Amino acid sequence: MIDLQDRGLLLGDGLFETLLAVDGVLDHVEAHLDRMAAGCEVLGLPTLDRGLALQHINQAVAAQPEARLGVRLTLTAGSGGRGLDRPEPPMPQMFATAAAAAKPAGPAALIIAETRRNHHSASSQIKSLSYLDNILARREARAAGADEAVMLNGRGEIACATAANIFWITDEVLRTPRLDCGVLAGIMRGRVLAAAQSLGMATQEVVALPKALEVSDAVFLTNSLIGLRQAVGLGRAQGVNPVLSALSQAVSAR
Amino acid sequence: MIDLQDRGLLLGDGLFETLLAVDGVLDHVEAHLDRMAAGCEVLGLPTLDRGLALQHINQAVAAQPEARLGVRLTLTAGSGGRGLDRPEPPMPQMFATAAAAAKPAGPAALIIAETRRNHHSASSQIKSLSYLDNILARREARAAGADEAVMLNGRGEIACATAANIFWITDEVLRTPRLDCGVLAGIMRGRVLAAAQSLGMATQEVVALPKALEVSDAVFLTNSLIGLRQAVGLGRAQGVNPVLSALSQAVSAR
Repeated sequence: MIDLQDRGLLLGDGLFETLLAVDGVLDHVEAHLDRMAAGCEVLGLPTLDRGLALQHINQAVAAQPEARLGVRLTLTAGSGGRGLDRPEPPMPQMFATAAAAAKPAGPAALIIAETRRNHHSASSQIKSLSYLDNILARREARAAGADEAVMLNGRGEIACATAANIFWITDEVLRTPRLDCGVLAGIMRGRVLAAAQSLGMATQEVVALPKALEVSDAVFLTNSLIGLRQAVGLGRAQGVNPVLSALSQAVSAR
Repeated sequence: MIDLQDRGLLLGDGLFETLLAVDGVLDHVEAHLDRMAAGCEVLGLPTLDRGLALQHINQAVAAQPEARLGVRLTLTAGSGGRGLDRPEPPMPQMFATAAAAAKPAGPAALIIAETRRNHHSASSQIKSLSYLDNILARREARAAGADEAVMLNGRGEIACATAANIFWITDEVLRTPRLDCGVLAGIMRGRVLAAAQSLGMATQEVVALPKALEVSDAVFLTNSLIGLRQAVGLGRAQGVNPVLSALSQAVSAR
């Protein structure tokens, strides 16, 4: 339970991380804590207490019997008075929850959402509690009978999906939007880029319009829970791309 | 206290209203409930229970001894499972808090924020719990020694301040940004426009670049708690504009 004056609850003032735990083993937890620590700097919150964060995460995992868990660590700016200004010093609150997270079966059907990513805010590059634009874009996807939505930024360039980063392959080059397109630096995004390079594959972080997806040979989504997931509906490919299997193996996606 | 699985807390999925109560009397409460009800439709949440909302508001007011109160009514999308999709049916949660709200003394010093308003999302026209962009813009104002920040939209047009609507007067015409610039339909904004018209003053809802503020004769901010507040730092005017006093009286700002 959390206080009714908490700024995370009242104003979306805070951060979260979602990570995978399989058989009690946390996946790349240090990278997730690094990202939350960086988010604290962007928001002007006190330095992340990594020990406490790990304690919350481990407790949440220990409380669940399932083998494959999605663990969510939440950090709020804590309770404050009325209005937008934080109290000084802020007293952040942290908690973690865990729930069974099955790997989704089959490809994700994609649409392009009308709701866009606000690349004109630092919030577009952190994993913040103010997630409503992504919820609205996801609702567009569901209303169209799809699973996920591609969010463009204010300039109309591809940014990401509502809960994943996006990649596509064209002419054997692996492409994903540049971070300054309003993109969260996904942990799995970074792992996939590194794995592709170690496999000798050409990679590019790009500024691209949605037509790049239409003419691609494969589109896929990444996040820490799904690993790599083929996407259909926008690119030319339907079946599972062999490169995708190789990348999935290279990042040891579980 | 609120559940740790609440989507308002985890994802900023919900709405709020802030209204004034003076000596136990609620100011334009029906207009605030209308706006929250409209927000529920935008978000796909169940019809607002207005009776319950009023009950929460009245309880919050009764619990505070101060004469002039800011009352905050919060509606969250309620608890759900992991991920962005809401449970069906959603089970919204509602609560209200009240706190002393003194009218700010003197004019507000304004800057123009780098952080912008996402006019490419329906969230820019509702009062949602995902308020982080406004917090970041407010932090820019504080870092510059100012009180409030003007937020532009993705096209660089004036939208609003971080917790207020913005007006300016040029050539005796009262101007404020059009709602489709990414602007919340402020209750006080609507009252000021109506009052100006009833005083025989020309009004325009406009699409305007920030230079419009620089060449204006007066700039002021409005919201339900401050009423009308003169702003300095961007326009030519320094003292209190006589039109402002007239408008303030006409809307019976308390």
